[in-house]
Amino acid sequence: MKTIAVDMDGVLADVYRQFLNLHFQDTGEKLSLESIRGLKEAEAFPLLKKHVNSPGFFESAPLIPGAQATLKKLIPHYKVFIVSAATEFPLSLHEKLRWLNNHFPFIQWQQMVFCGSKEIIRTDIMIDDHFKNLDTFSGKTYLFSQPHNEIASPGKHIRVNSWKEVEMQLLPDKF
Amino acid sequence: MKTIAVDMDGVLADVYRQFLNLHFQDTGEKLSLESIRGLKEAEAFPLLKKHVNSPGFFESAPLIPGAQATLKKLIPHYKVFIVSAATEFPLSLHEKLRWLNNHFPFIQWQQMVFCGSKEIIRTDIMIDDHFKNLDTFSGKTYLFSQPHNEIASPGKHIRVNSWKEVEMQLLPDKF
Repeated sequence: MKTIAVDMDGVLADVYRQFLNLHFQDTGEKLSLESIRGLKEAEAFPLLKKHVNSPGFFESAPLIPGAQATLKKLIPHYKVFIVSAATEFPLSLHEKLRWLNNHFPFIQWQQMVFCGSKEIIRTDIMIDDHFKNLDTFSGKTYLFSQPHNEIASPGKHIRVNSWKEVEMQLLPDKF
Repeated sequence: MKTIAVDMDGVLADVYRQFLNLHFQDTGEKLSLESIRGLKEAEAFPLLKKHVNSPGFFESAPLIPGAQATLKKLIPHYKVFIVSAATEFPLSLHEKLRWLNNHFPFIQWQQMVFCGSKEIIRTDIMIDDHFKNLDTFSGKTYLFSQPHNEIASPGKHIRVNSWKEVEMQLLPDKF
């Protein structure tokens, strides 16, 4: 059974909605997704560091549509691991664990990896929204579209714009 | 530069001393290391589950002698990652991060991995006290001696009885 490493922020968890809401709370400015397309997350949201270090940021993140349903369908066909950069933000560790248990009760603790760098992760497939994680990865790579990567060429990676597209790629027989 | 995955419990952190102390606190019985040699941790300490889920268990663990000094010497020659099973015990995540920051300030967040299973970890070398982690690992493997593995044959792994022995193995030119 092939193994998949699935990223959390920007792939399972809609951190952009969190950032947009918190930016509005802090500044009164309603940013549109169009205005920040192509910008790095820290460029689009100058208060990002403050927000990701605030209690509740990760635990209250909304879901990316389709993530639950598709992941559930993948489980019988792939060995799924959730691999999330977390050690940079101490609060995020416990919050991410709770968030996963809450939204993905069919994901067990054996399938969770909270790391800093993803360079020692080896699976057959990786789904991630950041080039830094995909570019050095030796397996098959899917770039999950997010505003920060939307303008860039996907290069050697396969771009997926939604969880429905992930499903079409990884479970083609079901279509 | 070669990569190393270093385990925490039983390799950096002296969890046996924690277990022995807590067993005495709970039962009044002073277990000797000799009496539990060869037993699995959960067989030696029937209250293990309670202890590892108690606040402070991981954060107050004593150090295995020599761990700090040898790890510091390895850093210029190897890319060191601390890879610890932690997601089974929610409290352990934050406590292990703080423990590492406290005792190993030269280890950065990029070098920490908190996981459930270690099966998707790929480094050149792994140092661990559990066969379940070493047996399926594809790189070079060092079995760090602990009472639960002391009687067993190391099999294909190289047994190391101390951090001094790790140093002799990985930095032979320094001896």
